[in-house]
Amino acid sequence: MLNNDSIVALATPSGAGAIAIIRISGQEAIRIANAVFKSIKNKDLTTQKTHTLHLGHIVDGAKTLDQVLVSIFKGPNSYTGENTVEISCHGSTYIQQQIIQLLLRNGCRMADAGEFTLRAFLNGKLDLSQAEAVADLISSDNEASHQIAMQQMRGGFSNEIAKLREELLNFASLIELELDFAEEDVEFADRSQFNELLNRIEFVLKRLIDSFAVGNVIKNGIPVAIVGEPNVGKSTLLNALLNEERAIVSDIAGTTRDTIEDELVIGGIGFRFIDTAGIRETKDIVESIGIKKTFEKIEQAQVVLYLVDSYELSVVSLEALKIEIEKIKNQFPLKPLLIVINKMDLLSAEKINLIETQLTTHNTQLQFISAKNKVGINELKNQLLSFVNTGALRNNETIVTNTRHYDSLLKALNEIQKVKYGLETNLSSDLMALDIKEALYQFGTITGQVTNDELLGNIFANFCIGK
Amino acid sequence: MLNNDSIVALATPSGAGAIAIIRISGQEAIRIANAVFKSIKNKDLTTQKTHTLHLGHIVDGAKTLDQVLVSIFKGPNSYTGENTVEISCHGSTYIQQQIIQLLLRNGCRMADAGEFTLRAFLNGKLDLSQAEAVADLISSDNEASHQIAMQQMRGGFSNEIAKLREELLNFASLIELELDFAEEDVEFADRSQFNELLNRIEFVLKRLIDSFAVGNVIKNGIPVAIVGEPNVGKSTLLNALLNEERAIVSDIAGTTRDTIEDELVIGGIGFRFIDTAGIRETKDIVESIGIKKTFEKIEQAQVVLYLVDSYELSVVSLEALKIEIEKIKNQFPLKPLLIVINKMDLLSAEKINLIETQLTTHNTQLQFISAKNKVGINELKNQLLSFVNTGALRNNETIVTNTRHYDSLLKALNEIQKVKYGLETNLSSDLMALDIKEALYQFGTITGQVTNDELLGNIFANFCIGK
Repeated sequence: MLNNDSIVALATPSGAGAIAIIRISGQEAIRIANAVFKSIKNKDLTTQKTHTLHLGHIVDGAKTLDQVLVSIFKGPNSYTGENTVEISCHGSTYIQQQIIQLLLRNGCRMADAGEFTLRAFLNGKLDLSQAEAVADLISSDNEASHQIAMQQMRGGFSNEIAKLREELLNFASLIELELDFAEEDVEFADRSQFNELLNRIEFVLKRLIDSFAVGNVIKNGIPVAIVGEPNVGKSTLLNALLNEERAIVSDIAGTTRDTIEDELVIGGIGFRFIDTAGIRETKDIVESIGIKKTFEKIEQAQVVLYLVDSYELSVVSLEALKIEIEKIKNQFPLKPLLIVINKMDLLSAEKINLIETQLTTHNTQLQFISAKNKVGINELKNQLLSFVNTGALRNNETIVTNTRHYDSLLKALNEIQKVKYGLETNLSSDLMALDIKEALYQFGTITGQVTNDELLGNIFANFCIGK
Repeated sequence: MLNNDSIVALATPSGAGAIAIIRISGQEAIRIANAVFKSIKNKDLTTQKTHTLHLGHIVDGAKTLDQVLVSIFKGPNSYTGENTVEISCHGSTYIQQQIIQLLLRNGCRMADAGEFTLRAFLNGKLDLSQAEAVADLISSDNEASHQIAMQQMRGGFSNEIAKLREELLNFASLIELELDFAEEDVEFADRSQFNELLNRIEFVLKRLIDSFAVGNVIKNGIPVAIVGEPNVGKSTLLNALLNEERAIVSDIAGTTRDTIEDELVIGGIGFRFIDTAGIRETKDIVESIGIKKTFEKIEQAQVVLYLVDSYELSVVSLEALKIEIEKIKNQFPLKPLLIVINKMDLLSAEKINLIETQLTTHNTQLQFISAKNKVGINELKNQLLSFVNTGALRNNETIVTNTRHYDSLLKALNEIQKVKYGLETNLSSDLMALDIKEALYQFGTITGQVTNDELLGNIFANFCIGK
């Protein structure tokens, strides 16, 4: 699987910018770069030290393509573990193309998606779950997903798995040893210690598996359906929620988010707001289609935010609202429902008291706000955050976000439980050894100690080219 | 004007990619970077050599933001001439923002557009026309504009101007000297040599001014109006023209152009094809609006390409076509017109002969092609290129592409011609000295020897942030 050829790709986002980075990796990387590079000081790149930078021009015969800075990294002290050159050129697409084409003509080939990181894995610079974390890190767009990816990239998850695997491996070898002495009926592996280990592994696996729900939420954001008529202040509310985050982002030119109106990061967690039309009862056939759609959108959401204009509560009876809320609760009994009364400044204290008494029930939270005057917004944010179990995150525990890892963990748990059952029912060592092997195999697939081309292909195909 | 503060900006295109580069420049750049950087090998960045690379983490207190590579450049050996640090981080927008915010909190401020290059200019690393060439280089999207920008960035244009300026300066000082001896009526400046110099300067200025037409075309591409009915094969023609270039581009994933259907690079020159509906005479009011629009589009174009389906020539009379062509020629007598007869494979040799005789006239070129079978395409490309005076480009002469330079050259020419006239009419030395000074001033504005804040502000505001 290890290739000696040199691969090249653009490592920075495509499009024009001040600078672009073209990366080459492979045994011949420095020699190839040297062949198209003319140093300002007539340096020979092949004799330069690792981790040094050199100013010069990329030349194609007599033609100068660009003035560039070249970084030299000598294997194994590079990201891939191979000789690596990074060419920092001017960011025109034309220049990027010309330089890459020149390198292709000089013996490089285009890198496949994720091939630099694949090589890093194959050269032992990263284990598989760390390599996967690189892709997660690049796509992380909020604090929580960034934190998890960083932890995973720095080996937190791998260490936890590797430790369990090693302990299990010890017992496995003892059990295997028993097989060699099968006739003598000896027990090298202490059954009660073994049982204790299996319980511990089971506990950790269950915790990791449970963390996937949180991890998934963090990775993909929490969908929140906003139920409410068009004029109850939905966009004012979103702007109020967005307010602080937006101020930070707009400090930095060019980094403003595109779809600020429906995706917000609150307390490091992404929330996706899904606008719905509301569910007011009607005989109008067009409107009842609207209600159907609202229910469909609530179906997709994890949290329902029911936004009410306080003015309506003054005219429409509170009873009508209660019925609508009941309808949602009946339809989605397990979905957290947050009732938000906007324009609270228009309500008297008695009225607020009345509404509170009438609407607060089991599984329903109530929040009075004034989106316009920014009253109650922080409380609302905390309530939204309370729907996410961020305990694991706060305690810096390992959180599983990767479906592949989740799948392997589930399979490993299944095998571990089989082994436990085997132990309880005095299963013969040879059969038990098979189950242990299978569990070890599943652990190995996570960190990459067990792997195959198809698996690697699937993982790295999801990377961007140049990483 | 020189600031001691440290500026920071994202230097790579915004958006997610494998790598992003954050650049800091200023006296304190290395110290600031060191304050947020934790080296893998516990290195102190402030004691490292220039042009070295260091692996480590960007840390915000106890929180690790990313694993990064840091490049150190010590002034004056950097792009800006100041201490510079480039942080190569993972390309997530979140990480970019976090690191930039951290640097802002540690004493950097956001760079203005073009401020890195402005500092390079102020620190004498580039003259003004070279600095401007950096922006041109980044936006260059074809060979010709790239070649011009490279030449300008390497000082070709500045050298030519500087040489003229110096010679003129010599004479200016002699003339000034004469002023000191005004009563004695001496002539230190040899008038015939001076006249010879003025002629030479005039000649060079005129050549440079003339080159702007070419430069402009190269920078912005040549608009070509394609006149023709919807089914005559316009898109097949564009695809045939595009064919080779496309093959090269599509080799490199992620670099395919977006609007391939209407912008082509032929022989290194950009052509923009403007689709028109045709001008067939009609009584239909809707259609006659179409004709008006076609004429408006031809107005914007520099070349008209009239595409005819040979099948139509068999049914509709050749006379009708001649009338339509006459109409375009009457409306736009100075615009080159290229008549392209598509589907030539359907025509007999006699028919081709007949059409050739009938249609070839002064200021009209004729080309038979088969877009489908790729016959006549190269000839067509050469004909399109023949409309561009690429001689200057081929001969590697200096080409002016910048409106500001063009303007200064025009003003300088005007002053030089005044001086010449003064010389002919025996104008007094003191008045002539004023005109020479004005000419010198105009030369100086091109290279930046003469400058002011407003001018610099205008120039660098057009740069992207991070350059």
